Amino acid sequence: MPPTVAQHTVLPQPAREEIRIEQVLQALGDPVRLLFVRALARSPEGVACGAVPLPVTKSTRTHHLRILREAGVISMRAEGTRRLSSLRREDLDARYPGLLDGVLNASH
Amino acid sequence: MPPTVAQHTVLPQPAREEIRIEQVLQALGDPVRLLFVRALARSPEGVACGAVPLPVTKSTRTHHLRILREAGVISMRAEGTRRLSSLRREDLDARYPGLLDGVLNASH
Repeated sequence: MPPTVAQHTVLPQPAREEIRIEQVLQALGDPVRLLFVRALARSPEGVACGAVPLPVTKSTRTHHLRILREAGVISMRAEGTRRLSSLRREDLDARYPGLLDGVLNASH
Repeated sequence: MPPTVAQHTVLPQPAREEIRIEQVLQALGDPVRLLFVRALARSPEGVACGAVPLPVTKSTRTHHLRILREAGVISMRAEGTRRLSSLRREDLDARYPGLLDGVLNASH
């Protein structure tokens, strides 16, 4: 029998070159999603999806995370029963230099 | 009688410090509005609102321009019967350094 290895399944997401600026801007242009993205920006190693306090129901949270993932803003991977999110900073910085920092540095 | 002066009426818009990042991102996150903003970026002196070809009806165009203006992305002024739009680059660059260039430099 082969040794047991940790299963890391990355949920479907656009490749770097498939990311579209309109979708990224739409995904970022929501207060709840922006709150989540700011939290991820402070945790480069990734965050358990439920760990960030958001003022919405669980199903709305799932909806927001899906929009961010499908736009290419965040990456989500399943590790056992956990789902970890991380910001696709490298991909976004490569596609749109300055954009993410401009958004993250904004206080309002 | 006082001499006739040109009437330049600026349409209502948020002051620089009233601009909100979510609204700016939402306003920019639409292909038609992005097309218009890119056209303005090439014409610092301002553009007659009808002069930029957009693949939408006149009333939809008016709607899009209003969203951009109310978000603080563009400024509109009436000069006689004309309406001129210009990008609020200085205000946006002051509020969100890097954001606008990141968006404008994006090819996709």
